[in-house]
Amino acid sequence: MAKRQLKYVGHSVPRVDGVEKVTGKAKFVGDLVIPGMLYGKILRSAYPHARIHSIDASQAEALPGVVAVLTAADIADLNPLYNGRPVIAMDKVRYVGEPVAAVAAMDPATAEEALSLVEVDYQELPAAIGIEAALHKDAPLIHEEKGGNICAHEKVNRGDVDEGFAQSDVIVEDRFTFPMVYHYAMEPHSVIAQYDDNDEVTVWSSAQHPFQVRGDIAKIFRLPTAKVRIIINYLGGGYGSKSYTKFEPLVVALARKAKRPVRVCNSVGESMVTVRRHGAQVWIKTGVKNDGTIMAREAEIHLDTGGYDDNGPQVTARSATRVLGPYWIPNIRTNAYAVYTNTGSAGSYRAIGAPQVIYAGESQIEIAAAKIGMDPAELRMINLLKPGQELRPGLKGIDADLASSLKSLMRASGWRKSLRKKHAAIGMGCAITNAGATPVSVALVRMQSDGLVNIAAGSTEMGQGVRTTLTQIAAEELTLPMEQFRVAGADTKVTPYDSSTGSSRSTTLMGTAVQKAARDLKQQFVKIAAQVMAVKPNQIEVADGALICGEARLTFKEAFERRFGKGSGGEMIGRGEAGPEITDHQLPVFWEVGMGAAEVEVDHETGAVTLKKFISVADVGKAIHPEHCVAQEEGAAMQGIGHTFFEQLVYENGQLINPNLVDYRIPAFADVPEEFHTVLVENEDGPGPFGVRGMGEGGILSVAPAVCNAIDRATGVRIRDLPLTSERMWRALKAQAK
Amino acid sequence: MAKRQLKYVGHSVPRVDGVEKVTGKAKFVGDLVIPGMLYGKILRSAYPHARIHSIDASQAEALPGVVAVLTAADIADLNPLYNGRPVIAMDKVRYVGEPVAAVAAMDPATAEEALSLVEVDYQELPAAIGIEAALHKDAPLIHEEKGGNICAHEKVNRGDVDEGFAQSDVIVEDRFTFPMVYHYAMEPHSVIAQYDDNDEVTVWSSAQHPFQVRGDIAKIFRLPTAKVRIIINYLGGGYGSKSYTKFEPLVVALARKAKRPVRVCNSVGESMVTVRRHGAQVWIKTGVKNDGTIMAREAEIHLDTGGYDDNGPQVTARSATRVLGPYWIPNIRTNAYAVYTNTGSAGSYRAIGAPQVIYAGESQIEIAAAKIGMDPAELRMINLLKPGQELRPGLKGIDADLASSLKSLMRASGWRKSLRKKHAAIGMGCAITNAGATPVSVALVRMQSDGLVNIAAGSTEMGQGVRTTLTQIAAEELTLPMEQFRVAGADTKVTPYDSSTGSSRSTTLMGTAVQKAARDLKQQFVKIAAQVMAVKPNQIEVADGALICGEARLTFKEAFERRFGKGSGGEMIGRGEAGPEITDHQLPVFWEVGMGAAEVEVDHETGAVTLKKFISVADVGKAIHPEHCVAQEEGAAMQGIGHTFFEQLVYENGQLINPNLVDYRIPAFADVPEEFHTVLVENEDGPGPFGVRGMGEGGILSVAPAVCNAIDRATGVRIRDLPLTSERMWRALKAQAK
Repeated sequence: MAKRQLKYVGHSVPRVDGVEKVTGKAKFVGDLVIPGMLYGKILRSAYPHARIHSIDASQAEALPGVVAVLTAADIADLNPLYNGRPVIAMDKVRYVGEPVAAVAAMDPATAEEALSLVEVDYQELPAAIGIEAALHKDAPLIHEEKGGNICAHEKVNRGDVDEGFAQSDVIVEDRFTFPMVYHYAMEPHSVIAQYDDNDEVTVWSSAQHPFQVRGDIAKIFRLPTAKVRIIINYLGGGYGSKSYTKFEPLVVALARKAKRPVRVCNSVGESMVTVRRHGAQVWIKTGVKNDGTIMAREAEIHLDTGGYDDNGPQVTARSATRVLGPYWIPNIRTNAYAVYTNTGSAGSYRAIGAPQVIYAGESQIEIAAAKIGMDPAELRMINLLKPGQELRPGLKGIDADLASSLKSLMRASGWRKSLRKKHAAIGMGCAITNAGATPVSVALVRMQSDGLVNIAAGSTEMGQGVRTTLTQIAAEELTLPMEQFRVAGADTKVTPYDSSTGSSRSTTLMGTAVQKAARDLKQQFVKIAAQVMAVKPNQIEVADGALICGEARLTFKEAFERRFGKGSGGEMIGRGEAGPEITDHQLPVFWEVGMGAAEVEVDHETGAVTLKKFISVADVGKAIHPEHCVAQEEGAAMQGIGHTFFEQLVYENGQLINPNLVDYRIPAFADVPEEFHTVLVENEDGPGPFGVRGMGEGGILSVAPAVCNAIDRATGVRIRDLPLTSERMWRALKAQAK
Repeated sequence: MAKRQLKYVGHSVPRVDGVEKVTGKAKFVGDLVIPGMLYGKILRSAYPHARIHSIDASQAEALPGVVAVLTAADIADLNPLYNGRPVIAMDKVRYVGEPVAAVAAMDPATAEEALSLVEVDYQELPAAIGIEAALHKDAPLIHEEKGGNICAHEKVNRGDVDEGFAQSDVIVEDRFTFPMVYHYAMEPHSVIAQYDDNDEVTVWSSAQHPFQVRGDIAKIFRLPTAKVRIIINYLGGGYGSKSYTKFEPLVVALARKAKRPVRVCNSVGESMVTVRRHGAQVWIKTGVKNDGTIMAREAEIHLDTGGYDDNGPQVTARSATRVLGPYWIPNIRTNAYAVYTNTGSAGSYRAIGAPQVIYAGESQIEIAAAKIGMDPAELRMINLLKPGQELRPGLKGIDADLASSLKSLMRASGWRKSLRKKHAAIGMGCAITNAGATPVSVALVRMQSDGLVNIAAGSTEMGQGVRTTLTQIAAEELTLPMEQFRVAGADTKVTPYDSSTGSSRSTTLMGTAVQKAARDLKQQFVKIAAQVMAVKPNQIEVADGALICGEARLTFKEAFERRFGKGSGGEMIGRGEAGPEITDHQLPVFWEVGMGAAEVEVDHETGAVTLKKFISVADVGKAIHPEHCVAQEEGAAMQGIGHTFFEQLVYENGQLINPNLVDYRIPAFADVPEEFHTVLVENEDGPGPFGVRGMGEGGILSVAPAVCNAIDRATGVRIRDLPLTSERMWRALKAQAK
C-alpha cells in the first residue's frame, strides 16, 4: 500500500496551548482560589537529625486568623507513610527542611507568623551528611529499624567478570563523582486540598502523576479512590520534581483539620531542600581487547538518597543497568546502593539514575580507547548493541538501530575531520536508557454533535507539548482539522486512568491509547457509512472528515445525524488503551537513545571552559512534532550543561547553603553553545503511533562525558568530578603542569 | 432459558442519594459559592404590556457595591432570542415579571437596592389578559410581526367526522375550562454563571436539560458548544418547570458584563410569574352508538401560552392528540391553538398538554355513557385501543395492553360493586400519552482498578430516583453490589450527551444506554476470561462479579489485573447508547398509561368535596424500583388533586394577585385521600431494560375527570370548570336545586 501522506503528524503545527499561555490565561495552581480557601505554610526542621520530644502549637493556634495547626498528633488515625516517608515528621526529623508542623490561616502573612509561634522541643542527634559519613561504621542510624544506612541495593550480573578481565588487553579503573543537583522548574510545587465532611477529597496540584497521587492519598486517608479527586491543569515544568506524591498528603491533612480548602505553594528554596537528583560516587572498571572488544565491566555505585526513600530504590535499580552503556558486554558485575543521609530526599529527575553513571562509563570508554590507540567512535561502533541483543538479562532486546544514531552523530559533528585536528577539543557520549514507562494508559475520544472532539487523556501538560502531540495523532486518524479538538488536564474523577507522565512515555503510550480511541471512533463512522451506502465496511475510505465509497460520500456530520437524528444531539465515543500487550508484556516499552558530541575551548589562564558546539542525536522513531522534539532535546542538553558546568547543592553541617537561584546557578541564555544542533533519527521502529519512541530524556545524558572527553583530548586533563567549575579546571591544569 | 432471578432490579433498594440528602450534605445551586461570586437580582416589568423607551442605569451603577447592571443594550452583539423569547426585554415587555434589567452586586441587599435605582421609561400599551381578550378582533398585538395572537396551531384529522356524527346514536357537546397552574418545587430555579475572558462559559443551574441549555447558550453567545459547560448536581424538584432553557442566558450575560461569576436565585413569587401550565378552554363533541362504539370526536382547544413561546407549540401539538383519549375513534377532527396573552409564559408541566384535555374527554365519556345507559367502564373497555392499533396517523401503534390496566383499576377500586350502590360517588379517568421522550442517551460505565464503577449518565436527579434506578440496572448487569457504583450529576464537559430529563424518559432511554454500557463492559471481562481459560466467550458465565466456566473462576478484579498488570491501575470503560433505533425510528418511544378511580363525598351544606379514595394504575412495564414507582404515581396524583380542587394562578389587570404559597394553595398532607393506592401493571412489554416503560406522568391525568365523574354520579351536578372549589361546588348545587 502506498504510504499515506501525513497531514498533522510530522509537522511542527502551532501548540494547542500556545495562545492561552502567551496571553497569560493559562491557570496554574497558584492562580486558583477555591471558595473559603485558606493559606498554608509549613514549619520545617532546622536540624538535620533530631528527636522530637514535643510540639506546642497552642500559641500559634491562638493567633487571630489562624484556623488550624497540624502536627503529627493529628494524623494518628492515618496510614502515615508513603514512599518511605511520613506525611509529617513523627518521632524525629531526618533533614533540614523536613515538615514538622503546618499552619492554615486567613492570609499568608498570618500563617508565616504562626510558624514562629510553634514550639518544638528537639533533641539534636549526630547527623550523617554525605555518603562517606553515612557509610562510616560509627555512623548514626537514620532509620533505626533498618539496622544500617543502606536504603536499597541492586545488582546486575552476567558471565564471569574475572575471566573477562583476564582476557582483556587493557583494564581501566576510575572513580567519578556527580553532584546533587536540583531540577529547577519555573513553578515550584503547589497544592490546594479540600476535605469535605463526607470524606471527599479534592486536590489541585502541580503533580505530574495524578493517578499515583490519588492512590497514595486514598491509602493514607483510608478512603476508596472514588472519594479522592485529583485535578491537574498545567504545570510550569516538572522534570521529575513533581512526580509521584510530594507534599499533597500534608496539605490534605491540614485541610481536613481546618475543615476548609488550603493552598500551600512552595518557595524555590523549599523545593530545593525537599527534592533533588541523587549525588553519586561511581567506581568503574572496564576491560578491553586491543581490537576494541569490550570484555568486562564492573561498577560500584553509591547514590546519596537523603533522609527518605522517595523514588531512591528505583533510581538505584536503574543506575545498576545504565552504567553498562549501550554496549554488548559479555561479563558484567554491577552493584548500586542508595544510601540514606541527613539531607533532603532525592527522587526522580529526567533520566533517573542515568547521568551519574553514564558520565562515568562514557568517560572511561574514551580513556580505554586512548589506551589502545583507537578512535573512540570506532570503539563504540564495534561494541554497540545490535537490534534484538540483550543489554542485560531480563530486559527486552534492543529495539533501535543504535549504529544509525552514532553514524548521524559522527556526520553531524564532523567527527572524523575534527579528530584529525591537532589538540582536537571534541568528545562524545553515547547512551541508552530503559525508560521506566509503565504501559497503562486509557483514553477516550468523544465527538459532540457540533463536530468538536474532546480527547480525554490523563497526561500532564508540563511544557513538553503533550496536548499538541495527542491532538496531532487524533487529527491524523480522524482526518479532521486540529482546531476541532480539545484536550484538558487530568481530573481523576472523569479522565480515564493513566499511570503517569514521565519516563518519556506519553507520546508512545498515551499516544497509542488516543490513536486507538480515534480509530475506534472512526470505525463507528465507517459502520454507519457502510450501512447507509449498503457496502462492506472495508470498502469505505476516510478522508477529510468524510466517508467515501466510489461516488458516494457521507461527512462525519451526516453520519452522526444518521445515527442520532438531525439536531438531536448525541455523542460518539471512541475508546483506546495501551496495556502491557503493547510490547508483548516485555519491558522496557522502548529503549531511549541519547548521543551527543561536544567541542570545547579551555582558557588555561582562568580554567574557564567554553562549550563551543554541542550536537545531540535523538532516535525518536518518528517525530510527531519535530520542533517540540528538538526543543525537548535542547532543553535536556541545557540541563546537562547545568550539571556539567556549575549546578551543585552544597551542604555544610547539614544545612543547604545555596538554596536560591543566585547561589545555585542554572543555565542561562549565555550558556547556550554557539553551535547547538539536534539531529532526529526517524527509523519508525518505535512501538508507539507512526513508529514513535519516547524521547526527551536522552539529551541530558551525553553532555558531561562529551565535555570531559573533549577536555581530555585538548589538554590531557581528565575531569572525574563535577561540576566542572573554572576553579576545578584551573586546579587540574595546575596539577598537570606540575 | 430459565428466567434469571433478579437481585437489584425489581427491589425497592435504599436510594443511593438518600444519606447525602437526609444529612443535608447534598448541594443545590443555592448552596454553591464560586470564587469571586456576585449576587444578582432581576428588575421585572410591572406592566403587562408596554413599550420601553429608555432605561437609565447610571444611578444603579453608581451605588457602591454594584458591579454591573445589565440591560438590552448589553446584548446587542448576541443572538438574543431563544424559544421565542429574548434574553432580556428589548423594545417592549409582554408580561408583568418580564426581566427588564439585572444587577450584579457584592451582596444581595445591595443588588436589591440597586434595582430600585434603575429608571425605565415605559409607554403602557393595552394588554390582552386571557384567551378571549387575546382573540378579540380588536385585541392588541403582543408580537406585532405575527399579525395576530395565535402562537401555534396543530390539528389532527382522520376519517369523516360529519359522517361519524351522522352514524352516532348519541352526540354530546361540552365546554370545559382548566386553570393556569404552577408547578411548585421546593427549590426555585437558581443559576450561577461564569464567563471567562477566553469566552469559556460555566453554568451551574437547577436545569433539567443540561445539554439543551448548553446548546441554547452556545447559539445565543455565538460560541462553540465546547466552550459552554453546564454543571448540574441535584434539583429540588422539577416537574417541567426547569426544563429547556429558562433564565440561564440572562445570568450568563450578566456575568459576562460583571466579569465575575454571578448567582441568581429566583424567589417562589418570581418563579410563579415566569413559568406555569397552560390554562385551557376545550370545546369537545363526541358521537357514540347505543352499543357503546365511539364513532367520532371533534375538539377545539385554546391554550393560554402567555407572553412568549417557551414550549407552548409542543404543548399545543400534544393536546391535539391527547384529547382523543386511549380509544379507537374512526373519525377525528381536532384543532389546538396556543394563544399569546400578556401573562407569564406557560411551558412544560408534567404530562404536557394532557390534563386539560383529558379532563374534558374523560368527563364527556361518562356523560355519553350515562346517555346510553351503559357502565362507563364498559364503554371504555369496548373502545380501548388494542396493542398495535394507531391512536392517530403518524404515531407508533399502541405498545401496551390497556385492557389489563383497566381491569386492574376496576378490580382495585371495587368498581362494579361500588356502582351498584345508590348515589354511588365514584368515577374514573383513563388516559394514554405519547410521551415526548426523544431517543438519544449516551452513557459510560467505568470501572477503576479498585473495583469502583462510575456511571457517567447525563440524567438529572430531581427527586425521582434516577441515580438509584441506573445503579440498579448496572448492578444487575454486572452482578456487582450497588455499593460499588457511583453516579454523579451532569457536567456537559465530561458526561456523555443525553437529550433531556423529562417526558418519563430516563429509565427507558438512559436506562438502556447504561444497560448497554454495562453489558459492553461485561463483554470485555468475558473476553479476558475466555482468553485466560482458553475457552469460547459464550462458555463463560457471569455471576457475583466473577467469570465462571466449569471449575474455572476468575473474579473481575483478577481479570482486570490480567489486562493491566497487578497494582498497575488501569480502567475499563463500557459504552452504551439509546438512539432512534431503540424503537426502529418510530415515535413515541413508548406509550405512557395512566388510569385512576375516585370516590368522593360532597357536603351539600358547604359545597366541600372530600376525596375519600383514589386508586391509580400505572402500566410501568417492569418496576425497576417499585417504591419509587408508587411514590412517583402518588406525587403525580397529588398534583392532580391540586389542580382539581384548588390551584389557580389568578390574574387581575395583568397582575398575578396570588404569587405566594399562602394565596396559591398547593396540596398538603391533609389533602391526601383516606384511601390512596397505586397498582403497578407489569407486563414487561416496554422498550427499556427488563421491559420497562416510562412512568411518573400518568398519575396526574385521571384525578380531575374521575373526581368530576364521581360528583356527577353522586349529585347529578356536572363540573366543567376547575378548580373545584367549595364555592364553585356550592353554587352548582344551588343552581341545580333551583
